[in-house]
Amino acid sequence: MKTISILDTTLRDGAQSTYISYSLEDKLSIIGVLDGLSIPFIEVGNPAASHLDRALFQRLRQGGYRSNMVAFGATAHKGVRPEEDAGLNALLEAGTQYISLFGKASLMHVKEILGVTPEENLRMIEDSIRFLVKAERRVFFDAEHYFDGYKLDRNYALLCLQTAQRAGADTAVLCDTCGGTLPHEIAAVTRDTAEQLSIPVGIHTHDDTGCAVASAISAVDAGAVQVQGTFLGYGERCGNCNLSTLIPDLQLKLGYFCVPEKALARFTTSAAFIAEVSNIPLRNQLPYVGASAFAHKAGMHVDAVSKLPCSFEHIEPERVGNTRQLVLSEMSGRAAILRHMESIDATLNKQSPEVIAIADKVKEMTERGFKYEAAGASFEMLVVDMLGRMPDFFRLEEYRIIGEQTDESLQKPTTAMVKISVGGRTELTAAEGNGPINALDSGLRKALEVFYPVLKSVRLTDFKVRVITPKRASAAVVRVLISSTDGKNIWSTVGASDDVIGAGWLALADSMRYKLYLEYKNRYGKDEKTWQ
Amino acid sequence: MKTISILDTTLRDGAQSTYISYSLEDKLSIIGVLDGLSIPFIEVGNPAASHLDRALFQRLRQGGYRSNMVAFGATAHKGVRPEEDAGLNALLEAGTQYISLFGKASLMHVKEILGVTPEENLRMIEDSIRFLVKAERRVFFDAEHYFDGYKLDRNYALLCLQTAQRAGADTAVLCDTCGGTLPHEIAAVTRDTAEQLSIPVGIHTHDDTGCAVASAISAVDAGAVQVQGTFLGYGERCGNCNLSTLIPDLQLKLGYFCVPEKALARFTTSAAFIAEVSNIPLRNQLPYVGASAFAHKAGMHVDAVSKLPCSFEHIEPERVGNTRQLVLSEMSGRAAILRHMESIDATLNKQSPEVIAIADKVKEMTERGFKYEAAGASFEMLVVDMLGRMPDFFRLEEYRIIGEQTDESLQKPTTAMVKISVGGRTELTAAEGNGPINALDSGLRKALEVFYPVLKSVRLTDFKVRVITPKRASAAVVRVLISSTDGKNIWSTVGASDDVIGAGWLALADSMRYKLYLEYKNRYGKDEKTWQ
Repeated sequence: MKTISILDTTLRDGAQSTYISYSLEDKLSIIGVLDGLSIPFIEVGNPAASHLDRALFQRLRQGGYRSNMVAFGATAHKGVRPEEDAGLNALLEAGTQYISLFGKASLMHVKEILGVTPEENLRMIEDSIRFLVKAERRVFFDAEHYFDGYKLDRNYALLCLQTAQRAGADTAVLCDTCGGTLPHEIAAVTRDTAEQLSIPVGIHTHDDTGCAVASAISAVDAGAVQVQGTFLGYGERCGNCNLSTLIPDLQLKLGYFCVPEKALARFTTSAAFIAEVSNIPLRNQLPYVGASAFAHKAGMHVDAVSKLPCSFEHIEPERVGNTRQLVLSEMSGRAAILRHMESIDATLNKQSPEVIAIADKVKEMTERGFKYEAAGASFEMLVVDMLGRMPDFFRLEEYRIIGEQTDESLQKPTTAMVKISVGGRTELTAAEGNGPINALDSGLRKALEVFYPVLKSVRLTDFKVRVITPKRASAAVVRVLISSTDGKNIWSTVGASDDVIGAGWLALADSMRYKLYLEYKNRYGKDEKTWQ
Repeated sequence: MKTISILDTTLRDGAQSTYISYSLEDKLSIIGVLDGLSIPFIEVGNPAASHLDRALFQRLRQGGYRSNMVAFGATAHKGVRPEEDAGLNALLEAGTQYISLFGKASLMHVKEILGVTPEENLRMIEDSIRFLVKAERRVFFDAEHYFDGYKLDRNYALLCLQTAQRAGADTAVLCDTCGGTLPHEIAAVTRDTAEQLSIPVGIHTHDDTGCAVASAISAVDAGAVQVQGTFLGYGERCGNCNLSTLIPDLQLKLGYFCVPEKALARFTTSAAFIAEVSNIPLRNQLPYVGASAFAHKAGMHVDAVSKLPCSFEHIEPERVGNTRQLVLSEMSGRAAILRHMESIDATLNKQSPEVIAIADKVKEMTERGFKYEAAGASFEMLVVDMLGRMPDFFRLEEYRIIGEQTDESLQKPTTAMVKISVGGRTELTAAEGNGPINALDSGLRKALEVFYPVLKSVRLTDFKVRVITPKRASAAVVRVLISSTDGKNIWSTVGASDDVIGAGWLALADSMRYKLYLEYKNRYGKDEKTWQ
């Protein structure tokens, strides 16, 4: 089995993404995840360009990682000797064994952007690499704009790489910096280039044509043995080659080795974690690791997958740590519901009266505007409740929302009065917020925390409002979806009503209730049948 | 220049996406956009599976589109004669000239899922197509699971297509239904298949390996002449081939013809519109049409792009109607605004102080969460107001919303107290509704109709709520979009606030205001410069 060496540059090229800004702690926690996945190389940052990265390299010197840390920087500046170049010295000070050194490989860039002669550029490449190699560093030479440069002047582009090879570079990395090259061109240029060099070739693609992953695969097929990308495809413009897609493609479909099988099975949770730290919602549609990657909605597909998973699934979701989602829409029947119920009560079958009752209930709720496909916690509680196993944690006695504005600036907060009861004891309180849902959120917590201090750990992380019957305009049914976390678990709940406040109340109440239910499960053991 | 025929299935396969649920009006407005882009084929829906789609086909019979509408359905049911098959008859009743008919092309699916003999399946394909062709329909035969079927039993998979060809199908569409096939396999199978058939071959890919676009390109290279996809890549699981990426790839990079150049230049605005109607935020990283597709963050890249755009851009953003983003490009902002203002005051230009002031105002409003792409009426009034030409129709003096529930059935209506003033006279009233927005809607109308009886004709037709900063959870900024009609005109307005009631108020007030403004324009002549 041929090994493809993966370099993750989430922390360097990924951080070029318009919406990303990592702290030192963010970077350390992402390094922890990538190291846990046995990614061979982690490109950490540019020590010459950022104080934060310098401090990070300082921290990383303590070691303890399996992955190799890589410092990133440029060839020596025009007219500066390597020994005196601040950038190269910062790379040495970073203290990593591996260095990604980028230089120009396109004649146009050499002349127009860098403003040096072609010979000077070659000298800059050669001298910089020799300097680093002399200091016992191993160098990946990142040839910027390699593909555009090759099309412009093949000989010069190759000469840059041959110079890097002669100077002692470990690997020549072909970068499609503008991202405009299509897979068949990537393949042809990579094949020719690999034949002209004795050192290994790497590939670094961007997604400007929507083909970054396919291009990397075609480069591997043409002889590249290192692939650079970012775990979730983050990066400037349209992003970099997405490693959470590429690695399963290479390993599960093409027989290459990238990471241990065990690491692959942690891809889905790792993706969720990196997305969370990056403060970018994980795209549901993302191949392999997205929430919808193995979701089936059409009734026919749900039936077929229930009969024979491979009928509509290209791999077993478990191999990348994901799970099959049979979407509970109006189309899906009892079989789908039963699948969801297996973990709750394995003795049930399609004919069980409970299953029939739950199927009817789901249908009724769907007609009222509820949708459980993205609200697993609400669904689980509905099932448990229908089975008569849901404790009565609290009841709504009353809420009153007062939204008041006395001029067009609309600056006044909304007030919520909330009265709930827990086992016969009532609690009445009030809170303010930005709008009715936020006020209700604050009021409900305030009232519940009197009885359940554990709810202090619950934090809302996402909030969606969907109008379901837009034809009825402002009287339409509204669905509110809420995601919550207690720092350890993540769950989603739903509420629907023709009143946005009522829908919000239901989703909020379910969110709090689910946390209490989790605590309850933990306390009374895994076997839920003993609760009753 | 070779033409590739594009079929968009956003409304059919795209609607399988977990998070999409289109109304009839949504579907009609997306058809309008795709038709405006000269997409040759629009797959509208499955008339046998959905009442909504049947009603839609009814509406579409009125014609007036350049695009060909396509109805989608399955081959006749097991053991049912085509003349008696409800699905096939629904396809005929849909009244389109073109029909996408899907059938099984994989022996495993024929036996295990469909549960018929291989010969029966062939007969189902043949009889169904003959039935449709006899009724003068043109049939695209969508061969489900073609690639997996080909790998399992090449001869049988081919036999299905040859049967379709003999029965009179127009095109044989090779579907990678599970989405697990990589581009090089897609190419090899497509090439072999195209050689075995005399009718044209189409390709239908899914993105489960992150290669849907690359696979479609490789199929085209191997001889496919039709590509099926969805404009923004929506679709079950990881989605379908993204046409807003594929079409520019084929047309700008590979020299194929798909749509007129002029249509290509509307891709970015069309993408924004379809995303808005689908209630799915447009992904910033999306190739060609995403907000970040031509954004440059790294200082070095910004400098280089300023010197020489092609140094970090693979195409000119204008070709797909996108713009380079360095910081926030003010000039491009103004040009766009000016385009909108032409109809209001043709004497203005990019340097006019009014245009600069409006650009600043739009920027400020955008930061507050407003978005005018789908709210032309709000934008027009903002411009007219900034030009000092907007009459002061009414002012909000005060509103008070009381949302009250005393048990978990949440059945009580919400009450709105509204106080407005018109030219110094105030009107105070109250109304009830389902939730705060509906109550406010009723209250505002009731108060305004005292002064403006013409508002009685105004009816809200659509209502959307979008949470813009979901990370702030229940305190997030919320955008409300409203469509209204007076039976003759249709207009859309927007409001944004961290309070859903406030956002609703702004959109409602703008809706009423726009009707008054339309009346005003009618009364004082078309030439708006004489209003002052």
